[in-house]
Amino acid sequence: MELFKVVTVKEAQDLIRRHWHPQRKTEQVPLTGALAKVLAATITSPGDVPGFDRSTVDGFAVLAADTFGASEGLPSYLEVAGEVAMGQAAGIRLKSGQAAQIATGGMLPEGADAVVMLEHTEWLGQTTIAVNRPVAPGENLVRRGEDVASGEEVLAQNHRIRPQDIGILAAVGVEELEVYLPLRVGIISTGNEVVAPGVTPAPGQVRDINSYTLHAMVEDSGGKPALYGIIPDQFAALKASVEKAAAENDLVLISGGSSVGTRDFTVGVLESLGQPGILFHGISLRPGKPTIAAVSGDKLIFGLPGHPASAMVVFDLLVRPLLVCGEYNCFTQRVARAKLSRNLASGAGREDHVRVRFKEVDGELWAEPVLGKSGLISVMVKAEGEIVIPLEQEGLLAGTVVKVQLY
Amino acid sequence: MELFKVVTVKEAQDLIRRHWHPQRKTEQVPLTGALAKVLAATITSPGDVPGFDRSTVDGFAVLAADTFGASEGLPSYLEVAGEVAMGQAAGIRLKSGQAAQIATGGMLPEGADAVVMLEHTEWLGQTTIAVNRPVAPGENLVRRGEDVASGEEVLAQNHRIRPQDIGILAAVGVEELEVYLPLRVGIISTGNEVVAPGVTPAPGQVRDINSYTLHAMVEDSGGKPALYGIIPDQFAALKASVEKAAAENDLVLISGGSSVGTRDFTVGVLESLGQPGILFHGISLRPGKPTIAAVSGDKLIFGLPGHPASAMVVFDLLVRPLLVCGEYNCFTQRVARAKLSRNLASGAGREDHVRVRFKEVDGELWAEPVLGKSGLISVMVKAEGEIVIPLEQEGLLAGTVVKVQLY
Repeated sequence: MELFKVVTVKEAQDLIRRHWHPQRKTEQVPLTGALAKVLAATITSPGDVPGFDRSTVDGFAVLAADTFGASEGLPSYLEVAGEVAMGQAAGIRLKSGQAAQIATGGMLPEGADAVVMLEHTEWLGQTTIAVNRPVAPGENLVRRGEDVASGEEVLAQNHRIRPQDIGILAAVGVEELEVYLPLRVGIISTGNEVVAPGVTPAPGQVRDINSYTLHAMVEDSGGKPALYGIIPDQFAALKASVEKAAAENDLVLISGGSSVGTRDFTVGVLESLGQPGILFHGISLRPGKPTIAAVSGDKLIFGLPGHPASAMVVFDLLVRPLLVCGEYNCFTQRVARAKLSRNLASGAGREDHVRVRFKEVDGELWAEPVLGKSGLISVMVKAEGEIVIPLEQEGLLAGTVVKVQLY
Repeated sequence: MELFKVVTVKEAQDLIRRHWHPQRKTEQVPLTGALAKVLAATITSPGDVPGFDRSTVDGFAVLAADTFGASEGLPSYLEVAGEVAMGQAAGIRLKSGQAAQIATGGMLPEGADAVVMLEHTEWLGQTTIAVNRPVAPGENLVRRGEDVASGEEVLAQNHRIRPQDIGILAAVGVEELEVYLPLRVGIISTGNEVVAPGVTPAPGQVRDINSYTLHAMVEDSGGKPALYGIIPDQFAALKASVEKAAAENDLVLISGGSSVGTRDFTVGVLESLGQPGILFHGISLRPGKPTIAAVSGDKLIFGLPGHPASAMVVFDLLVRPLLVCGEYNCFTQRVARAKLSRNLASGAGREDHVRVRFKEVDGELWAEPVLGKSGLISVMVKAEGEIVIPLEQEGLLAGTVVKVQLY
C-alpha cells in the first residue's frame, strides 16, 4: 500500500479539479421547473424591460418644465388632454400646458417626461387640474430599459436559479431554458457492523446513517443520488459494487466503515481502478482526516470517513460545490457572523471544523460550540452551523467574531 | 368600499393566525423522500444509539485502572485475551491484566471500560502488549445511548427535515415517517397590461413576472403552487378565477395589477366572498403597503402588491412561514450580520425593508443597499438579502451592525 499522501483542503480541491472532467449533459426546462437548477448558458435580454417609459404612481403625466415653481399658493394649471388606458399605447402627444391621467404601470404619452402624484393635484372643472408641487424630469417613472436593457447580461452561466431569477427570466421573455442535468451520485456504505435502518441491530451492530444523510445532502445540492446498499468488508464485493456505481454515475461516495480493515479494502479497490488513480489519501482536516479520492476515467470516487459528522464536513468541502456549480470557487453555503462563546484550541497544520449553535444574548448573536464526538449524529442535529479554524491558527479566543457556515 | 384598515406586520400576522385554520393532511414518506418535509408528529427513539459501548479508535480495550501510571519508561504489561470482530458481540470478558484488540466502531468486551490507542502500545511477543500511556475510564469510546438515549425526543413536530435529521432517523430505525402534505397555493395575476412571458409585449404591455416568482417561492417554501393565469380587470372574471382557485387550494395569492382599477376589483372580489371576510387592507410596510388579506371559510386569500419586490417582501413575511411550518414564530430564513455601508432614512410608523448585497472589505462584511424602485425585478436579482428598519425607528446610521435576511 502506498504511503499516506496527506494534503490540505485547498490541495485536495486543486487535485480534483485538475483530474476530473465530467461530461455535463444539459436539458431544457420550463420556467416553472427551473428553481435551484444551474444555468448551462449565459442569458442576455433580447429587449428592453420595460419596453416603454412607465409610471410608478397614480397621477398625471406632464412635461416637468410646466410644473417648475408650482406651489400650494401658486399652482401650475394644466389642461387634461386625455387618459392613458392600462396595457395600451398612450395614443396622445402632450404639448406644453397639457397633462394626461395615468395609473401606476401606465405608458407615458409622447412628450411627457414626468408624473405628478394624484395627491399633489386638484381637479378644477372637467378638463383642468392645478398642480401644487413641482416634479423633476424622470420623476415617478421607470425609463424604458431601466430594469433590463436590451442586450444586457441577465444571468451568468453556472448560476443557481433563485425565485427572483425566474422573475427576471419571465420579464425578458424566456419560457424555457437550458440547465445542466444533475450530476449522478452513487452511494455505498461499507462495514461488517452496519445494518439497514429497518433491522434491529444485534450486539456489535449499528444502523446505516451515512447512506441516508449523504442521499439527502446530494439531493439538497441539486445532485441525483442512488443508493447501492451496505457492502461487507470483502475486497471482491466492494470492487464489484464500486465498479457498478461508477458505471452508472458521475461520482461515487463510499462511506467507510470506520475500522482499519474497511479502510484498507477501500484503498485497495481504489488502487485497482483505472488511471489517473488515487489523488490523495488523508486531509489535514478535523473532522474528516481519513478521506481518500480517486479518479478513474471521468468518474470521481471518494472514500469518506465513517463518522457521520466527518462525512458531512468532507461532503460540504469537496462534494457539494461540485454538485452545485461544477467547481470549488462558488457560493454554496449561507454564512452568518457571530461571536464565539468560548476559547477553542486547534492543532497548527490542521483545519478544524467545529459545530456550533446560535444563542442570542442582549441582541447579540453568539456561536456556541456543540461539543461531542464526531461519531455522534445527535451532535449534527443540535448544530446550526460550523466554524473553521484555519490550518495556520492554533485556536480562537472567546469573543472573536467568527464566520458560521449555516447547515 | 370600506375604509383602509392599515395594520402593522405583527397585527397582520396575528389576524391571520386568529382567523385561518387550514386542514392539514399528512402522508407517510420513506427516509429518502423526507428532505425538507415538515414532521407531523414528534419522534422519540425506541432504543439506545449506539446499543453498546463502542470504541472510537483502533487499539486495545482495557480496564482503565490497569493503565494508571503507565509511561514510556514504565509501561503496563497486559495479556491480549482476543480480538473483537466488527459487527459482533465481543464474546470475551476481560479481567484485570487483560486487553482485547479492537477496531474503531467495535463493541467493548464485558469488563473493559476504556480503549488504548494502537500508537500508545507495543507488541511484546504473540500475546502481550506494553501500554505506555494511561487512559481514564470512558476514554476513546462512545457509551451505550450516548448519541441517543431510549425514549429521548429525537425531532419535534413541525420541524423541517434537514440531511442530518434524516441521519438520526435512520439511526433510531425510522424507515417511514408522517409528514404534512404541502399546502396548496393558487396563484393569479391580474392587470390589463400583463401578458404571458411567451408574448412579445405591445406598447403599454409588460410580461407577467409575479406568477413565476411566486410559483418558485411557494416551491422553495415547501408548498404546492398552481398557476391560474392572467385575469383582465373585470369583476366577474376575477371573482370566478378566485373562487376556482380557493376551491382547489388552501391559499390563494392574487398578484395585483398595480393600477387603482385592479386594486379596486381585488377588494371588491374579496368583499364578495364568505365570512370572516377581509382581515386588513394595507400594511405599514415599505415596500408592500397595498396588501390585502381575507379569509373565506378555511381558505386564506391575499391581494399582493403588483411590484415584484413588494410582492416578494410580503410573501416572506406573511406567506412563507405559513408554508414552512404553519405559523409565524418559526425560523424560515437564514440570517447574517453585517455593517451598513451608508445612512438610511425611514419614515416613523412604517417598517422599511431595504434590499442589500454584501461586500467584504478587509475581512469585514458590509451590507450595501441596492437602490432601485420596487417595480424593478433586476433590483431583486442584484440583492443577496434585505434588512429591516423597524416601525419606531427613523433610520439607520452607516456602520450600524444589521441583521440581513438572506434571499
